[in-house]
Amino acid sequence: MTTLSPEILDALEKQAIELPSWAFGNSGTRFKVFATPGTPRDPFEKIADAAQVHKHTGLAPTVALHIPWDVVDDYAALRRHAEDLGVALGTVNSNTFQDDDYKFGALTHEDDRIRRKAIDHHLACIDIMDQTGSRDLKIWLAEGSNYPGQNDMRARQDRLHDSLSTIYARLGENQRLVLEYKFFEPSFYHTDVPDWGTSYVQVAALGEKAKVCLDTGHHAPGTNIEFIVMQLLRLGKLGSFDFNSRFYADDDLIVGAADPFQLFRILVEVVRGGGLNNPDVAFMLDQCHNIEKKIPGQIRSVLNVQEMTARALLLDREALAQAQTANDVLAANAIFMDAFQVDVRPALAEWRVSRGLPADPMAEYAASGYQEQIEADRVGGVQAGWGA
Amino acid sequence: MTTLSPEILDALEKQAIELPSWAFGNSGTRFKVFATPGTPRDPFEKIADAAQVHKHTGLAPTVALHIPWDVVDDYAALRRHAEDLGVALGTVNSNTFQDDDYKFGALTHEDDRIRRKAIDHHLACIDIMDQTGSRDLKIWLAEGSNYPGQNDMRARQDRLHDSLSTIYARLGENQRLVLEYKFFEPSFYHTDVPDWGTSYVQVAALGEKAKVCLDTGHHAPGTNIEFIVMQLLRLGKLGSFDFNSRFYADDDLIVGAADPFQLFRILVEVVRGGGLNNPDVAFMLDQCHNIEKKIPGQIRSVLNVQEMTARALLLDREALAQAQTANDVLAANAIFMDAFQVDVRPALAEWRVSRGLPADPMAEYAASGYQEQIEADRVGGVQAGWGA
Amino acid sequence: MTTLSPEILDALEKQAIELPSWAFGNSGTRFKVFATPGTPRDPFEKIADAAQVHKHTGLAPTVALHIPWDVVDDYAALRRHAEDLGVALGTVNSNTFQDDDYKFGALTHEDDRIRRKAIDHHLACIDIMDQTGSRDLKIWLAEGSNYPGQNDMRARQDRLHDSLSTIYARLGENQRLVLEYKFFEPSFYHTDVPDWGTSYVQVAALGEKAKVCLDTGHHAPGTNIEFIVMQLLRLGKLGSFDFNSRFYADDDLIVGAADPFQLFRILVEVVRGGGLNNPDVAFMLDQCHNIEKKIPGQIRSVLNVQEMTARALLLDREALAQAQTANDVLAANAIFMDAFQVDVRPALAEWRVSRGLPADPMAEYAASGYQEQIEADRVGGVQAGWGA
Amino acid sequence: MTTLSPEILDALEKQAIELPSWAFGNSGTRFKVFATPGTPRDPFEKIADAAQVHKHTGLAPTVALHIPWDVVDDYAALRRHAEDLGVALGTVNSNTFQDDDYKFGALTHEDDRIRRKAIDHHLACIDIMDQTGSRDLKIWLAEGSNYPGQNDMRARQDRLHDSLSTIYARLGENQRLVLEYKFFEPSFYHTDVPDWGTSYVQVAALGEKAKVCLDTGHHAPGTNIEFIVMQLLRLGKLGSFDFNSRFYADDDLIVGAADPFQLFRILVEVVRGGGLNNPDVAFMLDQCHNIEKKIPGQIRSVLNVQEMTARALLLDREALAQAQTANDVLAANAIFMDAFQVDVRPALAEWRVSRGLPADPMAEYAASGYQEQIEADRVGGVQAGWGA
Repeated sequence: MTTLSPEILDALEKQAIELPSWAFGNSGTRFKVFATPGTPRDPFEKIADAAQVHKHTGLAPTVALHIPWDVVDDYAALRRHAEDLGVALGTVNSNTFQDDDYKFGALTHEDDRIRRKAIDHHLACIDIMDQTGSRDLKIWLAEGSNYPGQNDMRARQDRLHDSLSTIYARLGENQRLVLEYKFFEPSFYHTDVPDWGTSYVQVAALGEKAKVCLDTGHHAPGTNIEFIVMQLLRLGKLGSFDFNSRFYADDDLIVGAADPFQLFRILVEVVRGGGLNNPDVAFMLDQCHNIEKKIPGQIRSVLNVQEMTARALLLDREALAQAQTANDVLAANAIFMDAFQVDVRPALAEWRVSRGLPADPMAEYAASGYQEQIEADRVGGVQAGWGA
Repeated sequence: MTTLSPEILDALEKQAIELPSWAFGNSGTRFKVFATPGTPRDPFEKIADAAQVHKHTGLAPTVALHIPWDVVDDYAALRRHAEDLGVALGTVNSNTFQDDDYKFGALTHEDDRIRRKAIDHHLACIDIMDQTGSRDLKIWLAEGSNYPGQNDMRARQDRLHDSLSTIYARLGENQRLVLEYKFFEPSFYHTDVPDWGTSYVQVAALGEKAKVCLDTGHHAPGTNIEFIVMQLLRLGKLGSFDFNSRFYADDDLIVGAADPFQLFRILVEVVRGGGLNNPDVAFMLDQCHNIEKKIPGQIRSVLNVQEMTARALLLDREALAQAQTANDVLAANAIFMDAFQVDVRPALAEWRVSRGLPADPMAEYAASGYQEQIEADRVGGVQAGWGA
Repeated sequence: MTTLSPEILDALEKQAIELPSWAFGNSGTRFKVFATPGTPRDPFEKIADAAQVHKHTGLAPTVALHIPWDVVDDYAALRRHAEDLGVALGTVNSNTFQDDDYKFGALTHEDDRIRRKAIDHHLACIDIMDQTGSRDLKIWLAEGSNYPGQNDMRARQDRLHDSLSTIYARLGENQRLVLEYKFFEPSFYHTDVPDWGTSYVQVAALGEKAKVCLDTGHHAPGTNIEFIVMQLLRLGKLGSFDFNSRFYADDDLIVGAADPFQLFRILVEVVRGGGLNNPDVAFMLDQCHNIEKKIPGQIRSVLNVQEMTARALLLDREALAQAQTANDVLAANAIFMDAFQVDVRPALAEWRVSRGLPADPMAEYAASGYQEQIEADRVGGVQAGWGA
Repeated sequence: MTTLSPEILDALEKQAIELPSWAFGNSGTRFKVFATPGTPRDPFEKIADAAQVHKHTGLAPTVALHIPWDVVDDYAALRRHAEDLGVALGTVNSNTFQDDDYKFGALTHEDDRIRRKAIDHHLACIDIMDQTGSRDLKIWLAEGSNYPGQNDMRARQDRLHDSLSTIYARLGENQRLVLEYKFFEPSFYHTDVPDWGTSYVQVAALGEKAKVCLDTGHHAPGTNIEFIVMQLLRLGKLGSFDFNSRFYADDDLIVGAADPFQLFRILVEVVRGGGLNNPDVAFMLDQCHNIEKKIPGQIRSVLNVQEMTARALLLDREALAQAQTANDVLAANAIFMDAFQVDVRPALAEWRVSRGLPADPMAEYAASGYQEQIEADRVGGVQAGWGA
């Protein structure tokens, strides 16, 4: 069995992956959202489910909120609820894509009234952050157009800058604005922040507290994502990850499920660039469990990230550097693949037990009775989903 | 002004493009379905709207139904309603992707009960076809899996053959089964009929009355779609088109909006292979007007197909054949582009007037007051959408 | 350490992967072909290098030839040379893409003279097969066009059928014709056999001795290649694999280097469909070692296939079937990933030693002095490459 | 016939498109470079051919050089030769991808000796620019790696910055450095400047005289190229275009041949952003005429750009702005498509005649006898190609 060095275990012990509250609600495609027994009916139940993931893995101490999906009357109560369950509230995600007013844009809208409404929504999100103790405001800009000519892309880019500036000005001293990019969907012809370059120039124009969020499912086919990770770390602008995986579009599958080797390469670059356990670089999941159970889906996800991080840490960087310097292509690649091929699961299980965690979190959760309990309890009410 | 020869006008006069009833209902993305004033509340209103498209263009004499979205108590009444408005009922589309039973498959499902239910749904669709006078049963197989290992793809392929065989056996003498393929969505890892090859081998195993449906938005990036048109016509297995356009995924935009030259190339191959005005090759639209008005969206669409068909017919095939034989690459391409670059709109407008149709169907519809009427009338009730 | 069962070891012992003679010659991109010390100057030297791969791995008992690159005066001598070195001659690959006559096509050419010349080349290849004892004639059809309108794709398809029929008629009783498909390059607009569907309909029209060759690098982005493997095995038409890997185009990188999980999925489907160690399904490499050393590049490649085959054989198919039947998505995926994550290398090394092979073929080759020897010996002459 | 306003004709009269000297030499794929009769044997003959394009179109007053392909003893003589033929020498393109030393990198190379050599090559290029009167040094960075782990991407990025800084420091007052990006090829795993974002951050770190070059064939599938045009113009960093077209990879086909509507959208954005006839934004071709004749291939190309520019100028921007403000999706798209659909060729032919140019440059060139002359004259010698 491969053993993990104290240094590696120390790094793994510090690892924290934020869970998205919406992963516990129902999701689906434009064709159908299938309901799942036991799905939470409110933010309190979502956080309870998220706490289960942390309980069994020790990996997920915070939960991201999505506003207005997670609007509650009393955020202090929500915060206490989370803390009682051993987790904390994390990033606040804004939502300007489900109000009828936003059909043609929000922060980029030509109509000042709508643009102001969208800005105000973000200011309200920062108000919530003040109450929840959240550091990051994450903006996924679901804006764009479907047909060539529909919009003036250039003017929208300028209005986006204006809107973001107003929001940025409201941030508290220790708060950040993180801007996500996505190259398609829900708009089909153009999106207003399609690539890392656009996100970068927008946040660079704001200031130090503005960063880029990299969602691993938001790139064109063939994109070398780890290169972007490297570049954003080099520029000091990588604020956070939204982890998931995809085969073709923004599938939002379990991280590591579609291309585990890509996840490995990304994490190697994170380690290389000083992004691991770096408070400036948040690890988050952004996934949809359309057909599989949600809590074990999240457990599987954080374990996948942990396992691949362990492999990335096993990479013999010194030997690699020598092979790289010698331009020994086969040797360098072999050293790289060596780390990827190690089966770290037994060592991680053993270490987990040493920390009072279950050897097999998936099995432990299944045996815990929690799933049966929520399926029995959560009858009636409206299951949480992506609806406002 | 370019003039269109009598032969071309004769071909254009015969052209008929079937409209999808669902294009008149609301649609959207997984993130949001925006409501539109005036949206139909039932199949009768959908057909009334479709009839408007035909009234102003003379191009859309039939309307495809989607079951169960268009289930009515009395299909004879629906048929009369259509005929009163100058149109007929066309292809019946089955739907096995919105019932909870179909979460993991329908015609391919491992559970015989569910598979039988899905087969029965198709038999019920054929019952409706008998009443509506429809010829084609169109099957879009929205089945597949999201994760590697989730399913036994091979066994599903065999079960699909069994299911289709049972359905095929129920077809009337003049009825057909048309099997659509799609390379992704709503499943992300595998779809059970991902490509024309799979659709072809499945329908070839059934018999003469089974054909392939080619949806122009259902291919991988870089696919030469007109090659597939050519091949299916060559094999005698091209049953129908679902026209639309896309930039990245299955965007279901207005046909010709994203890549008009691709539409031209497809139509050139249709003409070349004898597929134009060939009763064996149905022209249909399959689109979503998520943000634009639906009736003019459909008018624009059928006009786009007509205009591009006119250009395809303008191609000087004799001169092209000579240049091809001489391997004069630039001359052949120039002859090809010549036809594409002709602005056929003035000639079509003139011809339209000569047939008692408006010169500008878009303007005529806008001026007709129909849109204002339905927006005023259709208040209350539930707007039609993709819900069952 | 994971142990491999006798059944698995038995299957692995039977595994044979054919090497391409051209992998030992120089290759590159359109921009530059870099020379490598020690590169063979003739087919005899190529075979000597290929024999090194087999010597150190026991995995590569045959070498494919490419005509005219491997034309020799005396094929019996070449055959004896191979046999003396412990290997045999395998598939013969035709080449109709480097003669000036083939600028606009070969087997599809409009000019009967050129088409006849291309057919004759294939008949000459079969003559060579008779002498070398080869079973398979592999045809990669590098034909197509660069500009829309340049060619009549339909007529080319018909001429292709005619040409293949003539070649097919010349096959000996135990010989086969294997038709490769490729969706782009060297033609940019259309290729005459772009997809498995086209290859399938062409070989199905020929007869039992005609099969499809699947090159893993010849698909559009997002294509589920293991689905095609499944389908071709189901149809009894998978004749051979050309293994390699790619990030974007037809990169011809070392198999398993770009997406090892995809290779795993392909091999799982091979096992599932009875394609492993099935004489009807040949395993071959088709790679280019543009910048890395060629002999160790090939050693690495066959080991990658072997290691992934071992993992595919470790898959607990019974447990998987149960999880699949229960539609337990997470359990099925976990069982699937379990096999992928096993580090089989120690067990394979041990087994290799038990068979008199080196534990570490890469290290053994490096220590053997062969590389230094050929770099010293092969000075002067013209290094083999893709030139005719 | 559509008429073109004096303003449009004035804009078109100012249009200048630089031709690449290498488009007149032979090119091909990694599989084969086909020879063409009449191909130039030296830079002087290339410029003579380029002058033919300008003579017949009035659109191509300058010719870009590629060093070392266009190395001559006497650049003053080459300059006079060009001027005698009515054209001027333009951009100088460096080449650091064909020397054996550059197998693993040039400006990014780990070995200081090789990196210095690559820098010196660029300094030598600037020396040539001083003699030819060229303004722009264009750098296409053909560097990267084929296998994960082969290189330290981060360190290469830093070394690239260092190398570019040294080169930048040598630029004359009125000279510029233009950095091209490309997302794949000739490297397969990573390229050191894969996207506009990387090119932007590199040139932004240099200063005002450094700009980005956008080659229309260098993007991932699905990329909205006109968005990048918009963004770079907005940022003041669009230095030049390399025009061509592609179906899948970097096909380098005739601009406008694969997706004419995309070319229209790009040119609309150029006009919108003030990039037309703006000295800061150079229009260049970068194409390969692998199978078609080269001089008429270039004539066709510049005409395609001119025709599409005319269409872009026909766009009724005022009406469009109104429809955009009203969020009338169909109206905005209709206005946009109106301009695209106009057949501007008759009006351009007439205008051309009024300027003393041929109505049909393709026909005029064919009738001129130049092609026959060079095919007869240029026998013997080595045809120019991509070889050093």
